Amino acid sequence: MSRERYVHWTPQAVRWGDMDALGHVNNVAYFVYCESARMAFFAALELESYSEGGRQGPALVSASCTFRQQVRHPATLEVGVRVARIGGRSFTLDYGLYRRGEEEPVAEGSSVVVWIDYAAGKALPLPTKLRSALEARAPR
Amino acid sequence: MSRERYVHWTPQAVRWGDMDALGHVNNVAYFVYCESARMAFFAALELESYSEGGRQGPALVSASCTFRQQVRHPATLEVGVRVARIGGRSFTLDYGLYRRGEEEPVAEGSSVVVWIDYAAGKALPLPTKLRSALEARAPR
Amino acid sequence: MSRERYVHWTPQAVRWGDMDALGHVNNVAYFVYCESARMAFFAALELESYSEGGRQGPALVSASCTFRQQVRHPATLEVGVRVARIGGRSFTLDYGLYRRGEEEPVAEGSSVVVWIDYAAGKALPLPTKLRSALEARAPR
Amino acid sequence: MSRERYVHWTPQAVRWGDMDALGHVNNVAYFVYCESARMAFFAALELESYSEGGRQGPALVSASCTFRQQVRHPATLEVGVRVARIGGRSFTLDYGLYRRGEEEPVAEGSSVVVWIDYAAGKALPLPTKLRSALEARAPR
Repeated sequence: MSRERYVHWTPQAVRWGDMDALGHVNNVAYFVYCESARMAFFAALELESYSEGGRQGPALVSASCTFRQQVRHPATLEVGVRVARIGGRSFTLDYGLYRRGEEEPVAEGSSVVVWIDYAAGKALPLPTKLRSALEARAPR
Repeated sequence: MSRERYVHWTPQAVRWGDMDALGHVNNVAYFVYCESARMAFFAALELESYSEGGRQGPALVSASCTFRQQVRHPATLEVGVRVARIGGRSFTLDYGLYRRGEEEPVAEGSSVVVWIDYAAGKALPLPTKLRSALEARAPR
Repeated sequence: MSRERYVHWTPQAVRWGDMDALGHVNNVAYFVYCESARMAFFAALELESYSEGGRQGPALVSASCTFRQQVRHPATLEVGVRVARIGGRSFTLDYGLYRRGEEEPVAEGSSVVVWIDYAAGKALPLPTKLRSALEARAPR
Repeated sequence: MSRERYVHWTPQAVRWGDMDALGHVNNVAYFVYCESARMAFFAALELESYSEGGRQGPALVSASCTFRQQVRHPATLEVGVRVARIGGRSFTLDYGLYRRGEEEPVAEGSSVVVWIDYAAGKALPLPTKLRSALEARAPR
């Protein structure tokens, strides 16, 4: 997916320790990069303002990633986020991970986030304002 | 998926540090647990014996996980592995992560593994003996 | 330091992902192993029962480790803990990390733990019962 | 120790996942930050040019860190490195971790690095040019 599809970007410096015994960035590190991008996107959305004092909030239902190119330290990746789907009680974020100045992603990820009542552990409808904020950032 | 579908099991002790700021096991840790189970399964298959002196071997193409229940430290998970698909140059492993003594998984994962020539970075046909070893462990 | 000096033991299975690009267990992983042992020791001491409803508790002031032997996956380490010092508001724990069946440690660690009031961020005198519990486990 | 004592600086963006279940950056993450700074310092020293084709190189003997202030995500730390000691076969690096724009460190670390023959696993005298490069960066 091309870079222009993504609406929010977070830089992620690859750490030496992100590499594994095969000498390249371990698959697990890509999920850390996506998490960092997701948290930065949530901050940009001011997600906490919809938490009803911390009683509601996002929970990760699933995560996936496709690894297209090997990466080695040192490197800085740019992680793009897009809103791929908005449902009644959940939404899907897609991620594109790119080296600076490159057009082909090194990896592409996706995750489903559900809005839950933490105490009850049950899904809730997305708050109206959150839905609007997501829609404003979703592709048409 | 029920436990009997899995053909290889690896215990994974949850570490205190696997928890995140939300006080439960972080999504990234599940991919570590699946990796540990995959590596133990590869060792059981004697995968290294097919590596032509380290020139060929497995590379992860994609990974995914669905999170069904929250887990907190202390806990020990049992990670089951099954061969879900055997292709010409790749195969798919599925994972089921369970608490001891429980029948409902806390998470389910999957990953696609391609057999590559490391120097050329190109996919190779699965070695015949590896294919046989995988088929012997695949469900009928 | 010989094994009999340690009063509490925690097994730690080395994960494949604990290895770094040099093909051995990364230095950072040893601090994770010591943390796991410390948390298990705290649980054995029932440390939470002294927390005054979560308002007080332990905070790490410093940590150190000396690496004596390289370790590679697969391996299981046994991490011994001893109470090396009991002060007015803090105590020191020492750790010995051994391979099963071996007498020479692969690493030795130490950490200083202070008892604090979390809201005030200030050190408090060790609760009397915690002091007694530590003394009962300290070498004579 | 004041900032001007350090001769090499590496920025380290705190990742959300660096926080633990207590809601602040976990002690283990500081050792990752120091490792990142050490590797960047080694690159600046062109350490690999002394490796005799990868047969010799640095090995970590010990690491320590004192934690002075709690850190939460989001934050970017600046990690300073100084050459604290140059011995015959080893040297000591000290680290200072600071928030941007602050003069009081959030943590201070140290590590002893020995120069070894990897195959033999034995310490070697520091290469003359490496010694000179270290001395050029050591405080007078």
